[in-house]
Amino acid sequence: MQEEHPNNQVTAAFLIIGNEILSGRTQDKNLSTLALALESAGIRLCEVRVIKDDADIIIKTVQALSAGFDLVFTSGGIGPTHDDITAQSVADAFNTPLIYNDEALSRMEAHYKRQDREFTDNRKLMARIPKGARLIDNPVSIAPGFIIENVHVMAGVPAIFAAMVQMLIPDLKHGTPLSSFTITALVAESEIADQLRKVAEDFPMLEIGCYPTWSLGLPASTLVIRGEDKSLVDQAGIAVKAFLPSKPS
Amino acid sequence: MQEEHPNNQVTAAFLIIGNEILSGRTQDKNLSTLALALESAGIRLCEVRVIKDDADIIIKTVQALSAGFDLVFTSGGIGPTHDDITAQSVADAFNTPLIYNDEALSRMEAHYKRQDREFTDNRKLMARIPKGARLIDNPVSIAPGFIIENVHVMAGVPAIFAAMVQMLIPDLKHGTPLSSFTITALVAESEIADQLRKVAEDFPMLEIGCYPTWSLGLPASTLVIRGEDKSLVDQAGIAVKAFLPSKPS
Repeated sequence: MQEEHPNNQVTAAFLIIGNEILSGRTQDKNLSTLALALESAGIRLCEVRVIKDDADIIIKTVQALSAGFDLVFTSGGIGPTHDDITAQSVADAFNTPLIYNDEALSRMEAHYKRQDREFTDNRKLMARIPKGARLIDNPVSIAPGFIIENVHVMAGVPAIFAAMVQMLIPDLKHGTPLSSFTITALVAESEIADQLRKVAEDFPMLEIGCYPTWSLGLPASTLVIRGEDKSLVDQAGIAVKAFLPSKPS
Repeated sequence: MQEEHPNNQVTAAFLIIGNEILSGRTQDKNLSTLALALESAGIRLCEVRVIKDDADIIIKTVQALSAGFDLVFTSGGIGPTHDDITAQSVADAFNTPLIYNDEALSRMEAHYKRQDREFTDNRKLMARIPKGARLIDNPVSIAPGFIIENVHVMAGVPAIFAAMVQMLIPDLKHGTPLSSFTITALVAESEIADQLRKVAEDFPMLEIGCYPTWSLGLPASTLVIRGEDKSLVDQAGIAVKAFLPSKPS
């Protein structure tokens, strides 16, 4: 059962599937792409998981996230090689057969014909989609992603993932967008913790984060204020600016 | 109950705590740092989660990961501001009070004295550690991390996180190290999928991954073979090189 959220809140989880991310060899670039796109649609990315290319783990995790969040997005494991088991595992998670999709086959056949490359059986594997799923367009390399129930299955290659996300966003259920205010000041966070705690108490409905950083070789703090009510975010921004040191001239 | 693993396998999970990662504003750099360090110690990083700075979610996730894996590592949320709730939440996850730690206080007092900065009450907040936890040294900014049960709590700032990981590694339970073989060839993965599937079937005890990439503007594939038995990894490497096109001269 999905939790009911007030104020038209739409929640999402992102599942990154791939041994190469867990081994540290490949740096994930898709989380920030997805997070920023979802934010523009007023959708709250609440949790991310990175898991191995393991059928049982993929099945259980897809089921858990699908039940726990309004929308689920996955990356990775939909290529043509033996270790690409995401499509089959997601089909299994919903007790649905994985079948060759006519529309996907026809798009891919035309693509390989244009490129004068053979549409081999291995390439055809990428046209297998859970029965009843809808396609996600892939303007980069054609082989589509798919949507089954509330789960959106996409490629791991960052350029393809980003293109698929752009294709998806207009059709997603949008939520209330967040307003945000960000400021960086040349002050250590422990120096402003008291005043900031007061502002956080005064604006309990806002999310106020303080992140240590360095600027010009000195300790600095970045403050991020986020919330659904823009006027409250603006008020908290004014309250915060009142105690921050002014910028160096 | 932790699962028993054959062959001295030690499993780990990494919990990244922080709204700034989920919002896409900050790119995580700690996953690859931890993954590569754990690999050097023969520890298998099996799962990563990214969650919000929310006490209930931190408590539940720490409990679940602590029960599911031999070792758990966390990053983020141990600074001095109101949104730093990791230490309290981890203490709550183990039903332990969060108390000022004398050793941490004394290290930090000396540090601020050397820097001629005041050891304020807000800075002292960073000396709070769950009762009975052991400290993780922080050679960068002194305020320590801590270990409670199998959970290792560290800072989110990448330089501090990396230093804490280096401090930790020698004292962790080491497992059987993985051998690995990596090769990139100028061939699309669909072209070698059949031969590679055969190798994967011949070496079921190895993890063989194939990742599409680009090299010199052409489609390429990176193959990664990993396993505990180095001679098997070498054999699979030879089998793979036999069907890959030779490098461009």
